[in-house]
This record gives sequence, structure tokens and C-alpha cells, in this order.
Amino acid sequence: MSTAAVPFNREALDQVLKRRFFFAPAFEIYGGVSGLYDYGPPGCAFQANVIDTWRKHFILEEDMLEVDTTMLTPHEVLKTSGHVDKFADWMCRDLKTGEIFRADHLVEEVLESRLKGDKAARGIVVKEEEDEDKKKRKKKVKEIKNVKLADEVVAEYENVLAQIDGYSGPQLGELIEKYEIHNPATNGKLEPPVEFNLMFETAIGPSGNLKGYLRPETAQGQFLNFSKLLEFNNDKMPFASASIGKSFRNEIAPRAGLLRVREFVMAEIEHFVDPDDKSHPKFKEVEHIKLRFLPKDVQESGSTVVIEKTIGEAVSSGMVDNETLGYFLARVYLFLVKIGVDANRMRFRQHMSNEMAHYASDCWDAELQTSYGWIECVGCADRSAYDLTVHSARTNEKLVVRQPLPEPITVEKFEIAIEKKKFGPKFRKDAGAIEKWLVNRTQCELEDLGKELKENGKIEVAVDGVENKVELGTDLINIEKVKRTEHIREYTPNVIEPSFGIGRILYSIFEHQFWSREGDADRGVLSLPPLVAPTKVLLVPLSNAAELQPIVTKVSAFLRKQQIPFKVDDSSASIGKRYSRNDELGTPFGITIDFDSVKDNSVTLRERDSTKQVRGSYEDIIAAIKEITYFGTSWAEGTAKLTPFDSQSTDA
Amino acid sequence: MSTAAVPFNREALDQVLKRRFFFAPAFEIYGGVSGLYDYGPPGCAFQANVIDTWRKHFILEEDMLEVDTTMLTPHEVLKTSGHVDKFADWMCRDLKTGEIFRADHLVEEVLESRLKGDKAARGIVVKEEEDEDKKKRKKKVKEIKNVKLADEVVAEYENVLAQIDGYSGPQLGELIEKYEIHNPATNGKLEPPVEFNLMFETAIGPSGNLKGYLRPETAQGQFLNFSKLLEFNNDKMPFASASIGKSFRNEIAPRAGLLRVREFVMAEIEHFVDPDDKSHPKFKEVEHIKLRFLPKDVQESGSTVVIEKTIGEAVSSGMVDNETLGYFLARVYLFLVKIGVDANRMRFRQHMSNEMAHYASDCWDAELQTSYGWIECVGCADRSAYDLTVHSARTNEKLVVRQPLPEPITVEKFEIAIEKKKFGPKFRKDAGAIEKWLVNRTQCELEDLGKELKENGKIEVAVDGVENKVELGTDLINIEKVKRTEHIREYTPNVIEPSFGIGRILYSIFEHQFWSREGDADRGVLSLPPLVAPTKVLLVPLSNAAELQPIVTKVSAFLRKQQIPFKVDDSSASIGKRYSRNDELGTPFGITIDFDSVKDNSVTLRERDSTKQVRGSYEDIIAAIKEITYFGTSWAEGTAKLTPFDSQSTDA
Repeated sequence: MSTAAVPFNREALDQVLKRRFFFAPAFEIYGGVSGLYDYGPPGCAFQANVIDTWRKHFILEEDMLEVDTTMLTPHEVLKTSGHVDKFADWMCRDLKTGEIFRADHLVEEVLESRLKGDKAARGIVVKEEEDEDKKKRKKKVKEIKNVKLADEVVAEYENVLAQIDGYSGPQLGELIEKYEIHNPATNGKLEPPVEFNLMFETAIGPSGNLKGYLRPETAQGQFLNFSKLLEFNNDKMPFASASIGKSFRNEIAPRAGLLRVREFVMAEIEHFVDPDDKSHPKFKEVEHIKLRFLPKDVQESGSTVVIEKTIGEAVSSGMVDNETLGYFLARVYLFLVKIGVDANRMRFRQHMSNEMAHYASDCWDAELQTSYGWIECVGCADRSAYDLTVHSARTNEKLVVRQPLPEPITVEKFEIAIEKKKFGPKFRKDAGAIEKWLVNRTQCELEDLGKELKENGKIEVAVDGVENKVELGTDLINIEKVKRTEHIREYTPNVIEPSFGIGRILYSIFEHQFWSREGDADRGVLSLPPLVAPTKVLLVPLSNAAELQPIVTKVSAFLRKQQIPFKVDDSSASIGKRYSRNDELGTPFGITIDFDSVKDNSVTLRERDSTKQVRGSYEDIIAAIKEITYFGTSWAEGTAKLTPFDSQSTDA
Repeated sequence: MSTAAVPFNREALDQVLKRRFFFAPAFEIYGGVSGLYDYGPPGCAFQANVIDTWRKHFILEEDMLEVDTTMLTPHEVLKTSGHVDKFADWMCRDLKTGEIFRADHLVEEVLESRLKGDKAARGIVVKEEEDEDKKKRKKKVKEIKNVKLADEVVAEYENVLAQIDGYSGPQLGELIEKYEIHNPATNGKLEPPVEFNLMFETAIGPSGNLKGYLRPETAQGQFLNFSKLLEFNNDKMPFASASIGKSFRNEIAPRAGLLRVREFVMAEIEHFVDPDDKSHPKFKEVEHIKLRFLPKDVQESGSTVVIEKTIGEAVSSGMVDNETLGYFLARVYLFLVKIGVDANRMRFRQHMSNEMAHYASDCWDAELQTSYGWIECVGCADRSAYDLTVHSARTNEKLVVRQPLPEPITVEKFEIAIEKKKFGPKFRKDAGAIEKWLVNRTQCELEDLGKELKENGKIEVAVDGVENKVELGTDLINIEKVKRTEHIREYTPNVIEPSFGIGRILYSIFEHQFWSREGDADRGVLSLPPLVAPTKVLLVPLSNAAELQPIVTKVSAFLRKQQIPFKVDDSSASIGKRYSRNDELGTPFGITIDFDSVKDNSVTLRERDSTKQVRGSYEDIIAAIKEITYFGTSWAEGTAKLTPFDSQSTDA
């Protein structure tokens, strides 16, 4: 067997995924809605198994605190987190046709097609375009004109394309103007790019006054529960919370199947850590693991050559900032390999500063290589103290860790004293708001206010919710630098966030594990690892003969009791056909029941990838299946005590 | 031990659920949003275990086809299903204050408080109101006036309350007028009830033109995929699909904690069955199971006395319509008991015709008794062919089963013949639409059209999308009754739908399994069955002594390898305190590690409910835990080989 004998063909894979209902466009009988997909039975089971593995690999192993928070989120929360203002893409509208384009994708497409036209004009043979998706889009382009471009224009275009993820909206607008980019289908002029917020908006409650959104990530629900989680964890630090669930992004023009959708399952970890100590107690266990890195300085030099080194070296050299981040990169790697990702088609790419999300201070993406290019599947961001700080400032709820100090320390800080007896009567109903405002000033602000107070004998401040400016004289307040002995250290933790896009991972695994049997391109095989395969066993009676029925029932009952997901295929198709069907479904094992089985309870076990077969009692066979599937035993080891079997060659 | 020694106290339970972070109001630091809750770690794990059990009990056992379909749903789909027009509650607005009331709840509250006032005026002692939720609402009511009502008014009020679920909006409006019901807080006049659609609305895509909703149930996604699922099932009938996921309802005034929320997890089964044969092959396996029924005729007679009988008798007497529906009622019962519902506080109530959902032809609810009353937790509806029929009519996609007939049959039916040569040139661009319209007429319509055609030599019809009325003469079409031999039977399946509200079930189990230790009302215990308990084992080292650490590590590693969820509590609290904490968390087993453990690897196992203890090697103890938790073995049987242990009494 060789899984590489027939070159990968995306169209063949797409047909298998469709035919076997791994997934399909949602609302297809209504014409579909782009960016929305339904998972059919095998896709749904594969997804459930990947999630189950994720839960064991991360949550159980690390004792993480899993939460399930709501998707509906009020405006105020996402305003604070920055999503209302910054979670947006740029779009251009063709006012004549009403068509809408995502600005960066449009520039990319048009420049790419001009470069292609240039190559053709220069007589350079371009490899056949195999991308179905791009083919469709290409149809929109009136025609690719074979026009030779000046050498410096080619260089300019290539330079733009290399940095396409980093342009702001106005910069994209300038490129569109400069390169005369129009609606590719009609050549119509486009409006300059405008921002489009990617969140779905709705109204909560009957009055329609409470604006809300569908969450764009699961993270916010975890941050808002920080204090409860810390308490649940008996105030011990560091700790991680985790959440698995749907998030939503109203993509401007979704494409590329499962890779860019409007509703998707995320699995996110928020690891809360002391900003002064990002070491990790289990880092030693993973430091020898080799990963392929693409750090930002390499990218900025225009190269995409990966550096392979151990995560231990990567952390000690400072390329990866700290042990905790490094620990998670290695754990992400181990997880992805376990569920079927090809390690040779995985890399960890560091974000360049101009592409980082608004909340991140550093970010490494686990990217998987597919026929659509390198796809970001897991983002590992250091969100620093951003989220906890902004929510705390907005709500006046402390989101901090309070840690007894081993030795008390002396600190100098500015403090504000309020002359309550005069303060209350003077400001009456506003007194509370003004006091709250004063108490919430930072050290820096207090220093300035104190200076002003000393110089002018009063300060004038604007307080939210109080009509006029508030004048405060030295009769009412005093601001002084004082020395204090502290027994408690109070800090806002930093957050390291590994964030998994489950749909993208599933699709990448399909590409990594799909191949065709040698000499027969039509016989596709999906080599999903047994642990995550939708169904573990196909039970195949040799024929429809009534005498086989009792043993089929007996083996079925045994499999059900062992909680091994299986299917019976007692259709009249040939054994070979039945196995081919299940090769496409990624079912790793086949059990054939024949007339000998009736006599001695023996059955044949077939392995999907090698089509090797062994024979034994059904109890022994099923014990071997269980070992291989759930405990990582190899085929050779798991079947060592069973008899090799090569008659009844079902794959001829 | 007696679990009933201390009377149930909802406030005590609420405190435990809050203190141990089973769940909490979402966005609490922002003041919260009513009807939205987050699950903390134990609530989330309990939910995950219940879902896992559901998957095994229903999907694996019955070979159902699980799908995961999108929550975002375009307007057109929910317009067709009837939800846009009919999925609504009635609300009244106080135009002065802006306050909004759900009309039926308002009538209920006000009449109940008047009846209470009447009882007080008559000197009848009313039991202390323990309902926290109602207490809060009562505060809104200016005061309950102790006014004696006329006997016939009391009877009238009671009659209204008994039927409160059955009134239409206009009827509620009449009641509000007749009984002079005003805003209870201000006595302000209310506007007449208006319909409020319970779906959350949003816009899909950047143009804002594609209106969509968050799904109110998971069912529609399953119906729309019917043809793909039937094909995946090799065209075999009957079969069931299933789906687990969030649904959304924009409740007017959510109350009662987890029982009425705006975002909730549902698990729904759509069992597709031949309308002419609703027998079930496995009905025999459940027919002996006794259930408690409250059929509609009993309710209509004004009684709520349940009838206890076997599901076999219920089906054979015709009270439950058919075997498939009966089979699911029994399987629902078994599932609920398995996850911790008290069988004595469960009943199956049949819907009265005026309360049925717009799509249902019959419906039995599994209701669970709580301190809030009887709560609908699982609806088992016969949706007949409603959904498949309306979607098929709207999309012109056949959603049918085609079944080879054992013997060909002869049928007479009306058929339409089109004179294509004249038809096409005459109607040109409209020809397609008109032909489609003609082909989609029912037999009944064809009979009428045929008659008209014969009488007038022509018919005039209105076709969607064609501007003017279409005139069709006998030169263009012919409608005749013809005899045909048919080899295929084509039918639209009926759907039996068991639909589970997971949050309501979880909350009911909390109430059913919460109790306090005798003599100590403050020591609450949550007796969740081991199978679904959030954590299975609490590992408790007797002290912080360093010499205990290696054995704690060894036992932890063993538990992790066996994939048994556990927690270590090495805090300095007393063993009794640590166990109390975990009684509240519903952890069924405790393993105590002491200084003997260091010598001989023996540990003590404690059972939560009985506080019984046994001793043995940690491997034997963990094997027993595994048996009891995952294979339903009893405590007595599972620990038979271990040594009873009664020193080190940790619960003194």
C-alpha cells in the first residue's frame, strides 16, 4: 500500500465528503446561505470525537475549569472588549449593481490575475488551476487579459501581495485607486472601502431596547466569570478555564467551504497566569518536542522558510516568549497529531505586529497546509491583562488575584482622603458618584490631581452622570503620598489563550488523510485515526443467509455493550463494494462474518489502510479493536496473538 | 441515613448551586440580563455527562443519525414552518411606564393574589409563601387587599386559572378588561395584548437584506436534510435523526431560574415513520414498564389525578396513539430515571387540543414536579407530515419515501397533459413557472380544474411570478382521469418527536436529589448518580505531610489513566469539611490517603449518601468505582470484596 501513489485531488475529496454526507450547505433545498454548513452523521460524529479528545487532552489532563456561557451578549460587554469598534473587515460596494466585495480579497484576486496574465504574455506556462472555488470566482472576472507588465510593476504587485494581511482600510482604498481596481465582473467603479462590523446584531427582550450580539469568540464569557472561577479554584493560581461552543462572524463574502464560515465551533482555553512568573511546572515534560517555527523576523525579511527546533530551545532563546506559551504550543502539536494532522504540514507562525488582534500582545498560529494554502487553525495569543483590565474599569468590579506576601513590604503611594462630613451634605445625591470617581483614579492621575490641588487649592473635574463640573477644594479632599506596609500583593493576571477553530481542523484532516488506492483513483480512502473516526467497525455478513443472523446479533450486542460505535452493512452489495463505501467513511475496522463464524464464533478483522486481515474469536477481535482505538496500541502489537488471514481476499 | 429527614428548602439549594458555581446569571458584573445563565465547572460537567448519557441511551442504542445544523436560519424557512406567524406570546404594555407584561402571566398573578386576599378576608390560613421568585414579584403588587369576593366570583376566577394556558390573545384582553386588571405596581391602565414573536432576529451578510432568526428549535435543520439522511440510511425506513444544541426564545419576562431562559440546550429526535405503520420492533422490550399518565379527558374533567398503567396497556387501549410514540415515552422514562429524576415525581401529561403547538397532532409531555410546580421537560409530539409537507410545497423539492411495492397496484388518478409545442411559444419566459404550477396541483385541485376545463373549454389561473392571469384552453392542456399500474409507493413520512429541554431537566434533578443530613440542615448533599456526577472522586490526603505526596501522585496518575474525573483537595481544612464541600458538589466517592497508604498502597473509599467506608488497595478501590459509576453495579455488589472500615470517622 502507498497512500501517495495517486496525487491528491480536491475534487475527488469534495465528492466523497458530499456523497457520504460529512457536511453540506445548510438550507440547500432553499438555495443555501453562503457560509452556513450542516454536518451530516459522519461529520457530526467525527466532530464529537475530536471534541471529546480535546476535552480529555486539555481539560482533564490539566484540571481546567470548563464553563458554558451564553452566545447572546449585550452590547455593553462587547463595547468594552473592543469588538464593537474594532472587530471589522473593510468592504467596497459597487453602487450600480449593489455587489459587495471584501476589500483585501478583491485587491488580492485582481493583482493575482494580472500577474497571471503577465506570465502568459511572457510565455511562461502556468500550472493548471485546480482550485474549484477560485475557478468559480474567476468566472466573475470578465477575462484574464494576457498583458505583459513592466518588471517594476510585477515587483510592486508581488510586494503588495506579500503584505496583503497587513493593510488598513484607507491603505486598501489607496491601492484600489492607484491600480485602478474595479468590479471584476462589470468593470464598474467601486466606492472607497468602509468598515463592516462582523458581529451579528439582535435585540434582547420585548422592548427592543437592549442591543446584543452573537458572541464572536467564547473568551469574553470566561473573563467575566474570572472571580467566580478563581474562588472555585480555592484562590489558587495559575489556572485555566475552557469553553467549547459556537461563535459567529458575519463574513462579508464567505468562501473556501468549511474554512471561512459564519457559524462555527470553537474550543478556547484561557490560562490565567502571574505576569511576573510565566514558568510552567510541566514544561520539562515537553521541552524535547521539535516544532517548525516561522517567527516574525523571518517573515519580515520576506522569507517563509521554517526553523525546526525543540520548544525548549525556542523558549530559552527568547523566540517564544515564555514557558507557559511554549508548553501550550507543544501540547497543541501533540493534540493535532493525535487526531490525524500530518506533522509535516503543520507550522507555528508568529503574527507580525500589524496583523495582531486588538487585544493581543503576542500570537503564534498553528497553521495547517491545505490545497487552499496555509490555514490558521489554532491561535495561541498572549492577551496580557487587556480584557480583565477593561471589564474591571468599566464595571468597577475588581478582577484581580490577592496573594499573601511571604514577607510584608513597604510601598509608597498616593492616597485620597475625603472629608465626609462636609462632602455628603455638599454634593447630596451626587456624592456617591463623585466618591466612586475619586476612588477609581490611577496612581498617575492622583499624582497630577494632588499637584493641582496643592497649587490651586482646588481641582475641577468632570464626573460621569453629574451635570456640572465638580469643584473640590482642600476643605473637602486631600491627596498625599503615604507609606504603607502591605501583606497582600494584588495583581491582574495575564491570559495565555489557545483558541481552536474546530471546523478548519476537521477540514484540514480530511485533506491530510485522503488518498486513493494504487491503480484506482476512484477508490478513495479517508485514513482517520481510529480514536476519532466516526464509526469504528463495519460489521459485514458474507451473505444474507438466515443462518448468519444469530451470530450477527451476538456480535452486535457485544459491540454495543463495549460501547464501540459500529454499523452493520447487510446490503446485497459485494463485500469489496461494502468495504469501499466504508473506506470513504473512514471506518478503520471491518469484521466479516462467514459460515465458519457460525461453527466456532471466529470472525475476520480487516484493517482499512493496509487491507491486512487477521482471524480470531469475536471476543478477542473486539478486544484488539478496543486496545488499538482507545489506548493507542499499534495494529502489529494489538493483533499479535491473532492469526493472519489471507483467503477471502475481499479487496481484489 | 434518611434523605427526607429535613424538609426540602429551595433557598438552601439555591445557595449551594450559587456557592459551588453550578450556574450563575450571565454578565453578572454588568448587572446581568434576565433569562441568560452561565454554567460553571460543576454545572458544565453535569450537563456534558447528561448529554453523553443521552447520546448513548438514544443515538447509539437506536442507531440514530446525529446531525449538527446551523442556529442561524433564514426568514424563508421559518416563514414556511409557521414560526414567523405563530411562534408568539401575548404582551401588554403600560404606555406610561413602558413596562411590559406577559398577558397570561399577568392575569394569573392578579387573580391568584385576589383569591389569596379573599381567603385572608374569610379567615382561612394560607401556607407561608416559600417561592423566592414569587416573593420578588409580589413586591411589585402594591398590596394584597384582604377583600372578600362573592362565591361566584371565586368560582369564576378558579375556572379561569385552570384554563390559563388555553386562552388566545383577544380572550386574554377580554379577561383583563372584565376583571379590571391593571399594572400591579402602579395601577396604571394597560394597552390591549399584542402578539410578540419569540424569535431573535438578525441580518445575514453585509447587505442587511437577508433577514434571519436564531432557531427556536433544532427540528427544522433535521427536516430540511431529510432526503440526504434517507439516502445515507440506504433508503431504509423507519429511521431517526437527532440533534443536540442551543436554541433561542426571546421570552417576554423570563423568571424561575433555569426553567424559563432565552438560550438553552435542546436534544431532539425526529423519528420518521410510515403513517400507515407506526408499530415499533422493540416495543416488546418496554411494554411492561409502568408510567403515570394524565390524559386529556381527565384534565378536561377538571382533575389532575394520574392513571398508572403499563405502556403496553396504554397503547393497546388507544390512550397512547401508537407503539412508536409509546416506545419513546418508555425510553424517555428510563433515561430520566438513569440520570437522577425521581420516578415518583414524573408524569406524562397529554396536551389538550387548545394548547398544542401549531405543528402537532398529538403530544405527551414528560413533566417533572418541582417547587415551581409541574414542569414540562420532554415533549413527545406527533408532528404528522406537517413540516415535510410545507417545506416540500414551498421549495418544490420532494421530501418523500419511495418504496418498491411487493405487488404492483392499479390506481386511478387525474393527470395533466401539456401540448408542449404550443405551450412553450405561447408563454415564452413564463412557460416554466406555469408548467411547474400545473404539475404541483393536488388530485383534488386537478379534479376541479378538469371539470372547469370540460365545461368552459378553458381555465383561468393565477400563477406566482406571472403578471397576469393565465388562460389555458383545451388546445394547450388536457386533464383526464387515467388508470396506471404502479410499482412504487410514494409517501411523506410522519414524524414522532421527543424533544428534551436539558436545562429544565438538570434543574429538576437538583431539586429531586438535594437533601440535608439529619440533624444538620446546613449540611446539604446533592445525590447525583455517579454516572452523571460532575466529578467522580475526591482525593483527600489526611494531612499535608510530605511523605503522603508520592502516593497521592501515584493514585492521581492511575485515576487519570482510567479516565475517571477526579479532584485533589489538599487544603488544610478538616477531612469532614472537605467531604462536606464535595457532598454539595455531588461527588459520589471519596478516597482518603493516610499513613498506612504509604506502607501498603491501601486507601479508604467513602460513599457520599450513606457515608459508608471500605478499605482496599487503590487499584481494587478504583476498579470498584469504575464498575459502580459506568456499569451500573450497586455499592454492595461493587465493594463486596473490600473490607468494611469504620475508624477514622470523618463525618462525625
